[in-house]
Amino acid sequence: MIAKAITTNTESLLIYNARLATPVASTDGAPNWQLSEIFPAALYCENGHIVRVGKEQEVVEGLPACEQLDAGKRLLTPGLVDCHTHPVFFNLRAHEFVQRVQGKTYKEISAAGGGIRYSVRDLRQADTDAVLSRVMRRLDTFLEYGTTTIEAKSGYGLSLEHELMSLEILQQAAARHAVEIVPTFLGAHEVPDEFRERRYDYIDLVIHEMIPVVAQRQLAQFADVFCEDHVFNAAESRRILHAALAAGLRPKIHADQLTASGGAEVAIELGAVSADHLEFTPPALFDRLRKSGVVPVLLPGADFFIRAAKYAEARAMIAAGLPVAIATDFNPGTCMTESLPMIMTLACLQLRMTPAEALTTATLHAAHALAMGNRIGSLEVGKQADAVIWDAESVEEIPYHFAVNRVQQMIKKGRVVWRRGLDKMN
Amino acid sequence: MIAKAITTNTESLLIYNARLATPVASTDGAPNWQLSEIFPAALYCENGHIVRVGKEQEVVEGLPACEQLDAGKRLLTPGLVDCHTHPVFFNLRAHEFVQRVQGKTYKEISAAGGGIRYSVRDLRQADTDAVLSRVMRRLDTFLEYGTTTIEAKSGYGLSLEHELMSLEILQQAAARHAVEIVPTFLGAHEVPDEFRERRYDYIDLVIHEMIPVVAQRQLAQFADVFCEDHVFNAAESRRILHAALAAGLRPKIHADQLTASGGAEVAIELGAVSADHLEFTPPALFDRLRKSGVVPVLLPGADFFIRAAKYAEARAMIAAGLPVAIATDFNPGTCMTESLPMIMTLACLQLRMTPAEALTTATLHAAHALAMGNRIGSLEVGKQADAVIWDAESVEEIPYHFAVNRVQQMIKKGRVVWRRGLDKMN
Repeated sequence: MIAKAITTNTESLLIYNARLATPVASTDGAPNWQLSEIFPAALYCENGHIVRVGKEQEVVEGLPACEQLDAGKRLLTPGLVDCHTHPVFFNLRAHEFVQRVQGKTYKEISAAGGGIRYSVRDLRQADTDAVLSRVMRRLDTFLEYGTTTIEAKSGYGLSLEHELMSLEILQQAAARHAVEIVPTFLGAHEVPDEFRERRYDYIDLVIHEMIPVVAQRQLAQFADVFCEDHVFNAAESRRILHAALAAGLRPKIHADQLTASGGAEVAIELGAVSADHLEFTPPALFDRLRKSGVVPVLLPGADFFIRAAKYAEARAMIAAGLPVAIATDFNPGTCMTESLPMIMTLACLQLRMTPAEALTTATLHAAHALAMGNRIGSLEVGKQADAVIWDAESVEEIPYHFAVNRVQQMIKKGRVVWRRGLDKMN
Repeated sequence: MIAKAITTNTESLLIYNARLATPVASTDGAPNWQLSEIFPAALYCENGHIVRVGKEQEVVEGLPACEQLDAGKRLLTPGLVDCHTHPVFFNLRAHEFVQRVQGKTYKEISAAGGGIRYSVRDLRQADTDAVLSRVMRRLDTFLEYGTTTIEAKSGYGLSLEHELMSLEILQQAAARHAVEIVPTFLGAHEVPDEFRERRYDYIDLVIHEMIPVVAQRQLAQFADVFCEDHVFNAAESRRILHAALAAGLRPKIHADQLTASGGAEVAIELGAVSADHLEFTPPALFDRLRKSGVVPVLLPGADFFIRAAKYAEARAMIAAGLPVAIATDFNPGTCMTESLPMIMTLACLQLRMTPAEALTTATLHAAHALAMGNRIGSLEVGKQADAVIWDAESVEEIPYHFAVNRVQQMIKKGRVVWRRGLDKMN
């Protein structure tokens, strides 16, 4: 139905014949949970940004010649935004998965020197290029499963040298891969082996050596802390995040995952951009989180993978007016998956979200958790043209048809960056 | 390290440089839960069957010229066997997923005319070729996620005409697709709309019209019943399966999924090849199941997807000496996934199996659940050469790295039938 392009201009792209489903920016400050759904829809972008989007007929009206992509009546959504990942590790920790299946808890494994500290010893021995190559492969998988932007944390280095190495690997990966990376400094992920008997010295190292260098070299946008009584307690977390904020790194926090340890309150006090996990956060705090503009990032994949005692109170958070986000928490210990669609399935089944809510949490609200809500997370005029064409007809199918990949094409900054191949079939 | 093939003989294939992990046939009748793991290993097959398998050096010794495949130090396992699937439906039931998320139970949805009966109305209106084309696509997905053989049930026709149509679609699909299909007649899946007020007439129809025709035309190997008080109770199930057995269709049974409704006892009495689900089966019956040679087929994906009250007692079954199998239960209502690797993840997390146990349940024991344990399910001499090369180094990685596809190549009857493509990446 659309005239063939007369000339090819790679800086502009029209996607037409699509079933559009996208969250839309809120107009009154309260989260907007209503998707905009249009069929037949089209999206036109120039230089990586959306210039027109909506009813196909209106979008194509008087359009200049441009590259065209027929979505074939398929679902078109914003690219997924994974706002909490830990991709800079070297080897897997499949052996701990076996230990957990056999009854050990995550905390027991950590106390015995496993968990994060295992990955720290492992990363410190690894060759930088070998780690980079694995990070690149992980980015391929993120992209293949619908994700166009990830937040990525350091936190398996835990020395100045290896934290810088981790953040530099992210910088190099970002320069080479279509997936956009938002780096977060997580030096306060755990107390490394060599500081177990002098943990205060490690906190000083984070505050006085790591944070200044990371900030000065602009290697991270955010700083994060694993706030838990047996890792960094609320007082320590507050001190670290204050120092980060003073250096120009906006705070994020792993809060109340295993116990109610005060993490959400630290987030409120500091005006953190997000508070992540929140399984054990007292619901009485939800209103204060909202007033402080803290985005709750829920990570049901980790609860699933470590067989957690409870999931976060997502419905109560939504009822309290919070712009709930979800993320994979991709990491080798507590959530070994790059698939946000699978996390959407868990959000529906375990957090009782509708598929439409799950999509909003994995796109626009996830963008808010990165302070990028004005640039990514929805298909609206002026935003970056990051999109997914799904081999599906409705948003419901994404979480419903689970654990198999339904992505058909990936668009990043207005260019097709991945297309489902015709895998060799005899 | 291996000399290049001098001539190409497509009827023989050597896979070398592999990390072999396979269950091995039991020698004493009791299930053998110990995998055979060898590296570097090789497998040589001729005319679709395994002629040599084991240590690479021993396999290649004096081997004739043949086609060769370097596994690149990757994991090599038997092709997965999915011994319980319902792939012959037309449209999805994503709307019911949304209803369940919002609090409705599976039983409430069924009682309101949804569930199986929705799919029956839908299939009866569908064009045969359109259904076949969707079944073929589903087979592609099974294959892509590691499965080389599926058991496939009818059961969304529920009239003579549409049950035959369903089984004929399976026959046509089997003739065109690499995935091997073992057909099961499931006319007793539900009482269709037009028989709700005269359910005994429907049972008579199944017994006196459907079973004889299905058996005579050899359209199925097995007959199955959904035994549950609100569907077909134990007495009705017994009657139907007796008729099936007399006609030459070996019994299978959906037993004790939602309540302890006597299904496992029916399986024991009839010597069913398998009893499937078993969430509510009294553990006191486990020993009798074993003595009757009934294979328990556990379906944790359905429990996950419908948020079931409980999972089956897998550890107690293993302790009782039962050859536990797992399957996807792929169907549009209660488990919409073709991925057995995801079911292995659930088997580890929810049924407390080790990854090695999960592999055995999804291969050799699943083959036993189809009375095919002598032909498929393990990589042993004389068996069919159905195998998976995984982009992984250990069996643990399959359930651990969840919800993303780790399959690198699929081999069916000694031929490479699927290879992970280089999807287009800009």
